Amino acid sequence: MFKRGLVYGVQNAALQTLTMKFVRFIMKNAALTNMPKHVEYYAKFSPSPLSMKQFIDFGSTNACEKTSFVFLRQELPVRLSNIMKEINLLPNRLLTTPSVQMVQTWYIQSLMDILEFLDKNPDDQSILGEFVDTLVKIRNRHNDVVPTMAQGIVEYKETFSQDSVTNQNIQYFLDRFYMSRISIRMLINQHTLVFDGATNPLHPNTIGSIDPHCEVTKVVKDAYQSAKMLCDKYYLSSPELMLQELNSNNRKQPIDIVYVPSHLYHMLFELFKNAMRATIEHHETSNSLPPIQVIVAIGGEDMSIKVSDRGGGVPFRRTETLFSYMYSTAPTPQIGEDTPTPFAGFGYGLPISRLYAKYFQGDLQLYSMQGHGSDAVIHLKALSRDSVERLPVYNKTALRNYKVSQEADDWCMPSKEPLDLASYRVAK
Amino acid sequence: MFKRGLVYGVQNAALQTLTMKFVRFIMKNAALTNMPKHVEYYAKFSPSPLSMKQFIDFGSTNACEKTSFVFLRQELPVRLSNIMKEINLLPNRLLTTPSVQMVQTWYIQSLMDILEFLDKNPDDQSILGEFVDTLVKIRNRHNDVVPTMAQGIVEYKETFSQDSVTNQNIQYFLDRFYMSRISIRMLINQHTLVFDGATNPLHPNTIGSIDPHCEVTKVVKDAYQSAKMLCDKYYLSSPELMLQELNSNNRKQPIDIVYVPSHLYHMLFELFKNAMRATIEHHETSNSLPPIQVIVAIGGEDMSIKVSDRGGGVPFRRTETLFSYMYSTAPTPQIGEDTPTPFAGFGYGLPISRLYAKYFQGDLQLYSMQGHGSDAVIHLKALSRDSVERLPVYNKTALRNYKVSQEADDWCMPSKEPLDLASYRVAK
Repeated sequence: MFKRGLVYGVQNAALQTLTMKFVRFIMKNAALTNMPKHVEYYAKFSPSPLSMKQFIDFGSTNACEKTSFVFLRQELPVRLSNIMKEINLLPNRLLTTPSVQMVQTWYIQSLMDILEFLDKNPDDQSILGEFVDTLVKIRNRHNDVVPTMAQGIVEYKETFSQDSVTNQNIQYFLDRFYMSRISIRMLINQHTLVFDGATNPLHPNTIGSIDPHCEVTKVVKDAYQSAKMLCDKYYLSSPELMLQELNSNNRKQPIDIVYVPSHLYHMLFELFKNAMRATIEHHETSNSLPPIQVIVAIGGEDMSIKVSDRGGGVPFRRTETLFSYMYSTAPTPQIGEDTPTPFAGFGYGLPISRLYAKYFQGDLQLYSMQGHGSDAVIHLKALSRDSVERLPVYNKTALRNYKVSQEADDWCMPSKEPLDLASYRVAK
Repeated sequence: MFKRGLVYGVQNAALQTLTMKFVRFIMKNAALTNMPKHVEYYAKFSPSPLSMKQFIDFGSTNACEKTSFVFLRQELPVRLSNIMKEINLLPNRLLTTPSVQMVQTWYIQSLMDILEFLDKNPDDQSILGEFVDTLVKIRNRHNDVVPTMAQGIVEYKETFSQDSVTNQNIQYFLDRFYMSRISIRMLINQHTLVFDGATNPLHPNTIGSIDPHCEVTKVVKDAYQSAKMLCDKYYLSSPELMLQELNSNNRKQPIDIVYVPSHLYHMLFELFKNAMRATIEHHETSNSLPPIQVIVAIGGEDMSIKVSDRGGGVPFRRTETLFSYMYSTAPTPQIGEDTPTPFAGFGYGLPISRLYAKYFQGDLQLYSMQGHGSDAVIHLKALSRDSVERLPVYNKTALRNYKVSQEADDWCMPSKEPLDLASYRVAK
């Protein structure tokens, strides 16, 4: 009996597995068919921007995993669906590139993964555990979204000519798409870090990825050191750092804010790499390198960091193209290349850094003086109550932005031809 | 016979004068009736932007007054009519203020004055002389356009609430209106200065108002000195100037460009006044004032001037409002006041300075670090061939800009209320 039972049991289990696989397959296909319906449904909701305070409340001592779970299983589909609506508005020839198709399937899969939890019991601890595992799986699935999407743009650029309207659309889309991604990863990171049961041994006082006392000059020094290491390796020298801190609130205290140190590091590392490269290339023939000057200042509203180099600057006309995804002048790297060039990627360093700054209502600006050098300024909110997520929302205004057509300029275009003053007049 | 003749002659002259006055009155009224027709006609043409090179050719040794006359009697009506179409698009409650009505009659009168020359003979030297006189009359008539228009905005603001759409419209309009005015005055100044038969004894090498070798640091020092005089008078002290010049093209030569020194002076004087006021007010309690630092640099494309102060800066959020005509925080001065406050006007100093910079394809940018200070950068074209007038043109795109309605933001507005995570969801 025992034996038979066992055999029967095994057979039964195998059958059950098969059946379950089949059911899952059916369900998956049903889900795929229903996908547009789900996307339509969730895209009707506006994402709910969280403030730093709310992020911290989620992770404080009275943090409630159940509340966070209930919030995320609704909010993540809303954020995913809002941006999925916009992916569908991309020019068809870009939308159908293999890379963008792949990104799209990742988004569909992740939406499906989360929707599975909709009817699950939040009081069941094992459900909460599964949810964390699912979030980790989603995060890993989306690891390569930025380079894959960039690859799609490259494929598109290789095949089709670039016009200013398409460039404008892609700039608009990618700023929103990558911002949405930053926010989704932030939500996932906070939940998984806070509720994995362990404290971060290196940073015991952080709440998830947030440091309630992020010492700004520490991050400046870290980012400088990393950039310097790379720079020394590739150029065999690097400019010095001159750091100045101005705490008008309290002269004796180091400046700290409630912030995500990894975001700040990301921006500063990028700015230091740019400043170092410009300095070294502009002073190739000289014996000494002018230092990179950094000023950190805080006022009642803003915390600002200025990174100044004397790397010769760029023409004013080109400043905005440094933030362009489409007109990036960086050589195209191959995904999976063994020897990545550390001082160049897809040329997305600056635009993505600006998104990190804007994510919590800050900004990143670049001012260049050709013949002299460049200043880059990061502005962040000094007060955590002002640091609220900046999130794209799919609505009529967004839709209209994708339908922009080439318009006549409302300022005169100077003609290339010399003006014939005797017979210069042409009707509009 | 002689006597009778004389009396008759006198009578006849009086009658002639009367008749002429009557005819002029009739013509004037006919012209006024025809005015919309003329405006419609000339607004159909696009203004013709001139380059620095063309301005200089007009004023060089082979300058031809006749060519300039033929050009201007057509171009001035085109520029006037293009902007008159836009004045008509202002909100009715602004358009009907006494101030804006007055500005409008000036424009109509000046258009009429120029149209009188349409059928005149360009080979008649006395006609050319009359034309110069008319231009001078027009320039004087329009002297007070900026404060009068500003007064209209003040009247409008006092009566009606300000909404963001109206603010946006007025900003758009005034930037174009004042730019048009700068360009019209430039044309008038060039013609009257070049063809008045005298050379400027103070500036023998200038061509009209253009200096083909405008030494930038000279203008910097002039503007600093004037601002310093005012500042010393009102605050009894003033910050020092630290000036650095970087000519990457030729280290030994002072930086010079083909430019209008008065425009450059206007911008710099404004920036110095702002920098001095900020420095003094921020260091009220301290014994020493940090200097104002100026860097002048030139590259292959741009000539840039950075004016840096340590006056404590302004919040990042407020930077753009410093350029707003509508949200100007300056106290309202009264036109014709005997004691103008030299450190405050209508608060139009920055936006008008930015227009001067943009007029020849440059720009003026302000970036501030709250708790530290502000940097203002003027970018101008290094090469005269790139310095081409930037002119507003009335077309469908412009028209559409006045019809902008309040749209939903395509980025989420963070709610003021704390998010209730249990029941937070509201459909769009």
